[in-house]
Amino acid sequence: MTVQYIFELFGVFVFAISGALAGNERQKHDWFGIAFCAFVTAIGGGTLRDLFLGSKPLVWFDDMNIIYAVFAGILFTGVFYKTFDKWRKTLVLFDTLGLALFTIVGLEKAQSFGANNFIAVLMGMFTAVMGGVLRDTLINKTPLIFMEEIYATACIVGGILYLLLDGFGLDRNLNFIISGSVIIAIRLITVKYNISLPKFYKE
Amino acid sequence: MTVQYIFELFGVFVFAISGALAGNERQKHDWFGIAFCAFVTAIGGGTLRDLFLGSKPLVWFDDMNIIYAVFAGILFTGVFYKTFDKWRKTLVLFDTLGLALFTIVGLEKAQSFGANNFIAVLMGMFTAVMGGVLRDTLINKTPLIFMEEIYATACIVGGILYLLLDGFGLDRNLNFIISGSVIIAIRLITVKYNISLPKFYKE
Amino acid sequence: MTVQYIFELFGVFVFAISGALAGNERQKHDWFGIAFCAFVTAIGGGTLRDLFLGSKPLVWFDDMNIIYAVFAGILFTGVFYKTFDKWRKTLVLFDTLGLALFTIVGLEKAQSFGANNFIAVLMGMFTAVMGGVLRDTLINKTPLIFMEEIYATACIVGGILYLLLDGFGLDRNLNFIISGSVIIAIRLITVKYNISLPKFYKE
Repeated sequence: MTVQYIFELFGVFVFAISGALAGNERQKHDWFGIAFCAFVTAIGGGTLRDLFLGSKPLVWFDDMNIIYAVFAGILFTGVFYKTFDKWRKTLVLFDTLGLALFTIVGLEKAQSFGANNFIAVLMGMFTAVMGGVLRDTLINKTPLIFMEEIYATACIVGGILYLLLDGFGLDRNLNFIISGSVIIAIRLITVKYNISLPKFYKE
Repeated sequence: MTVQYIFELFGVFVFAISGALAGNERQKHDWFGIAFCAFVTAIGGGTLRDLFLGSKPLVWFDDMNIIYAVFAGILFTGVFYKTFDKWRKTLVLFDTLGLALFTIVGLEKAQSFGANNFIAVLMGMFTAVMGGVLRDTLINKTPLIFMEEIYATACIVGGILYLLLDGFGLDRNLNFIISGSVIIAIRLITVKYNISLPKFYKE
Repeated sequence: MTVQYIFELFGVFVFAISGALAGNERQKHDWFGIAFCAFVTAIGGGTLRDLFLGSKPLVWFDDMNIIYAVFAGILFTGVFYKTFDKWRKTLVLFDTLGLALFTIVGLEKAQSFGANNFIAVLMGMFTAVMGGVLRDTLINKTPLIFMEEIYATACIVGGILYLLLDGFGLDRNLNFIISGSVIIAIRLITVKYNISLPKFYKE
């Protein structure tokens, strides 16, 4: 197990928590409903990416650790819900870690399927955010990332940076860490200072 | 035509009715909208399973009987709506039959694509319930199976039983009937006694 | 670049505008949310068709012109929103042009994958309308085409006509123009005279 792989499982774990919490908002979900939301949120982005790339088998098809990480997230939400407030900041950190990792992992996978730079950045962002979009659609909310905060934008900026540094011949692991860190930094700074993209609304 | 195949077409027919009825709830659908809901409900689960497994072509791509069964369900709903009350119990029976069949068929198909036991059970359940999830999302309702009744859980229990009996070397056809019957029994008993999974809600 | 290809890009451009306008209805979308809605509306139908047919790579995967057309639609919506009223009729015309093109293109692609006549017509219609269905689901509205106007029906009629004329040995390009024109005519006439399919509603 590489460090990157362990971080990825952490990302799945935290995305599963975010899905379980979203299901919980609707108040009427039973355990199955919560589990379903957790699964969709955690593996939905990667699944869609693999379908779009035509990559077989899907990542979770023969990696049970991903499945265990989702279940761990569901259990964690069920057991520790009441003491969540203390953890909330740590969770945002992990969620952002997941976001950064999934972006770069998705980008590299798209490249390995012959994607051009634009599509690679798009696929990286897509991998990272699409689970959340599916999650919000399932509970009939307008997806959060359409409206608030710098989220997908951080992925796009990080993806472009990765390609630039790659173009300058930077070592892949170093590039992974730098570009990922930039995604994390953009996200944390914009959350802290409540920065968001301009609204589009025209009337 | 085997007995199993005829039952499967019945399952498609009844799932199509359930989709048409869901569209009807929204009251404003025209015939096309109703037909769309019926198709998604009837073939959505199998379609997603085949996409996830990378199975080509999709089942309905060269089996027109499936398409005919969907149209029969739509017509049936349009023509016999007023006399439905008499039929409602029979419909629940067929819906449950479809649920049982689709679970085992989906499980076996996933196995034939090399799925491990866990993924096979998941895919079986997924085949059976995903049409209903898509149906409810299309009409902007929180999917029913997230909240009420033992539905997906019956599929999971039946799927696990199938794998256990298969592990003991039971004849496949016999196993199909036994495991399918257990799904049907769980579903009908829990509907009759109004049993559901514990709610998850934490505040 | 053929004439057909240029028309197709126009279709993508106009579908992207329709997606951006739908996102704008929700009022709270930022630029990213608008762009996401535009992309889903413009390339969602073709993407689903390609996934269903098992066609790789997806059309937009190595054709950047499609991506540019989407961005042009987003920018156009942002910049010219206030002067839209003058353009609205022209937009309906282009949207209908896109509808007609996508139907026949989708039908032909399905045929090239060995689809029977029924599935080919279905796939043609699906290519043309599915972007709009995804768009409406993303903003949590009941999809417009389930309720109002002759939209998908025009695609189905045009698709059937194409197959009939093809059966009579008509030249493909001529057939494309005739069948496409019929789709456009049906759509424009029914919009003008406010004709819609019969409602289904039973109580």
